[in-house]
Amino acid sequence: MPSAARPVLAFIGGTGPEGSGLASRFAAAGYRAIIGSRSQERAAEVAARIVATDDPVEGMANADAAREADVVILTIPYAGIADTIPAIAEGARGKIVVSAVAPVEFREGRLVALRPDAGSAAQEIAARMPESRVVSAFQNVDSHALAEGTPIDTDIIVSSDDSDARHQVMDLVSAFPGARALSGGRLASSRYVEEITALLITMNRIYKTHSGVRITGVAR
Amino acid sequence: MPSAARPVLAFIGGTGPEGSGLASRFAAAGYRAIIGSRSQERAAEVAARIVATDDPVEGMANADAAREADVVILTIPYAGIADTIPAIAEGARGKIVVSAVAPVEFREGRLVALRPDAGSAAQEIAARMPESRVVSAFQNVDSHALAEGTPIDTDIIVSSDDSDARHQVMDLVSAFPGARALSGGRLASSRYVEEITALLITMNRIYKTHSGVRITGVAR
Repeated sequence: MPSAARPVLAFIGGTGPEGSGLASRFAAAGYRAIIGSRSQERAAEVAARIVATDDPVEGMANADAAREADVVILTIPYAGIADTIPAIAEGARGKIVVSAVAPVEFREGRLVALRPDAGSAAQEIAARMPESRVVSAFQNVDSHALAEGTPIDTDIIVSSDDSDARHQVMDLVSAFPGARALSGGRLASSRYVEEITALLITMNRIYKTHSGVRITGVAR
Repeated sequence: MPSAARPVLAFIGGTGPEGSGLASRFAAAGYRAIIGSRSQERAAEVAARIVATDDPVEGMANADAAREADVVILTIPYAGIADTIPAIAEGARGKIVVSAVAPVEFREGRLVALRPDAGSAAQEIAARMPESRVVSAFQNVDSHALAEGTPIDTDIIVSSDDSDARHQVMDLVSAFPGARALSGGRLASSRYVEEITALLITMNRIYKTHSGVRITGVAR
């Protein structure tokens, strides 16, 4: 049963492998997790397939998911930012909004890493959601590792200009056995982490694997 | 004594901590290593201080160093690219040129990660040196670890559009105990590695350490 002390989490655009993978892991760790989608029916369908816990993951339309949650996690494609934010901005007002968005596209099967004018996808989201507390995290968590339920062999670098929000999101990482939360400092560092995500996708293709990243020399 | 089978290495702009650190490690591993500088005198001064081996590291003007070497390694600041390349282009013709350049600057003590129009510093160098075989590597090797002589706890990601050149540079990584060479594929991946360097500098400040990076999940 989800603990009352734990924040309720909504995964906006959470019907894809990253969002549903994160939701299932958090549900298994005792969080109340909501899958959001443009379509409530689609959200409910995906949520029903997640059986990581006795307490089912719920599916809602994105706006309702944002309203219901304490922490709103964006797992949408980069191209979906402009369309999605208007639907969730009101529900996410004053709340922590986590960007797990990597600004990459595949064109004719080839990876194209974009360079948002704002510096990063997370910074673009922050500019579009000035009334939310935007944090960058989770971009480089491999969705296959999430789905398999095995330990997550990666560091999760958490960046925000709001240090209290940054620490709250770093605490969420304890839901992922094997992963380690590191502070990346200010939100501007999100750019580096988004680029790492593109590198890991490249590595996955070269080495036919599911890769992660560790920062060495850091004692916590 | 340097082996005749090993390529002669020149470190252009090698009087700084990164260039002299790399040169001393390669010299200790049996390579003939040359420090290049705008000033021959300055190059000779820095080279004389490197006592990693019985065979002294030499100091030369950049143009002479490039001419004398088999592999030319650029360890200049990003801002020095435009001024340095004309001096070495002729000597480096047809040779492997390694960009260890990270496009970062410090303004009022604050890290500013630049975004070269070409995509990365390495791609900019490739555009300016069309007759050389440009490879991206070594950006994220911490100069303190090089100077201390301890094992290098980092992966070195090597990228190039010339796969033979890429493999030759990957072979050089065996001179660094502890480090692992990984292929980053095409030169366009240099952008991600340059961004990682900016992240590691940020991490060094946050955690007061000397950090490195490891890609997990990759078996070689």
